[in-house]
Amino acid sequence: MGAPGCPIERAVRVLDGKWTLLVLRELLEGTRRFGQLQSALPGVSPKTLTDRLRTMEAQGIVERTVYPEVPPRVEYRLTPYGETLRTVIDALRAWGEEHAPDTSHP
Amino acid sequence: MGAPGCPIERAVRVLDGKWTLLVLRELLEGTRRFGQLQSALPGVSPKTLTDRLRTMEAQGIVERTVYPEVPPRVEYRLTPYGETLRTVIDALRAWGEEHAPDTSHP
Repeated sequence: MGAPGCPIERAVRVLDGKWTLLVLRELLEGTRRFGQLQSALPGVSPKTLTDRLRTMEAQGIVERTVYPEVPPRVEYRLTPYGETLRTVIDALRAWGEEHAPDTSHP
Repeated sequence: MGAPGCPIERAVRVLDGKWTLLVLRELLEGTRRFGQLQSALPGVSPKTLTDRLRTMEAQGIVERTVYPEVPPRVEYRLTPYGETLRTVIDALRAWGEEHAPDTSHP
C-alpha cells in the first residue's frame, strides 16, 4: 500500500478537493454555465471555481464550449472520461444517504 | 441538487481533503501507529497528519488508543462508523484501476 501504483491514490489525485466532487455532481446532471455552477455551490468563490474548472479541463474531465454570442455564452460539460466518475459519485451518494445524517431538517 | 440535504455534500464534508481518504485507505488495512501512517503517506507533514487524525476522531471515524508504555504507544484504528467508508474507498479503487493510468511503471 502507499506505492505510486496505488489506484486509490491515483483516483484521489484526480478528485482532490471538495469542489471538484461537487462540480462533478452538478455536471453529471447535464451541461451548466458558470453562473449556474456558482449558484449550485454556495460558498465557492469565482476564482476557486475558475481554477477548479481549468484543472478539470486539463485533466480531460470537463469540456468548455464558448458560443460566439453577445455576450459570449460559455458552457461546461463532462467528457466521456469525466462521465466514468459517476460510479464514485454514486458511492458517495449511497454512503451519505445511509451514514451521514441530514442535519438540514432537524 | 445543491441543497444542504444532498447526501453527496454530506459525504464530501466528512471526506474533505486528500489525506483523509489516504488515511482511511491505510486504516482499512488495520491498526496503525502515527509513524506507520507517516511513512505510508509520503509528503504529509506531521502537523497535517495530526490535524487530520484529530478531525477524524472528532467525526467519530477514528479511535485513538494510548498504551501506558515508556515511551507511550499510540495507535489509531477505525471505529465501526469509519469502517462503513470502505464502500467509498472501494469505489475509488475500482475507478482508479479502470480509469486512472498508473504512471509509476512507464
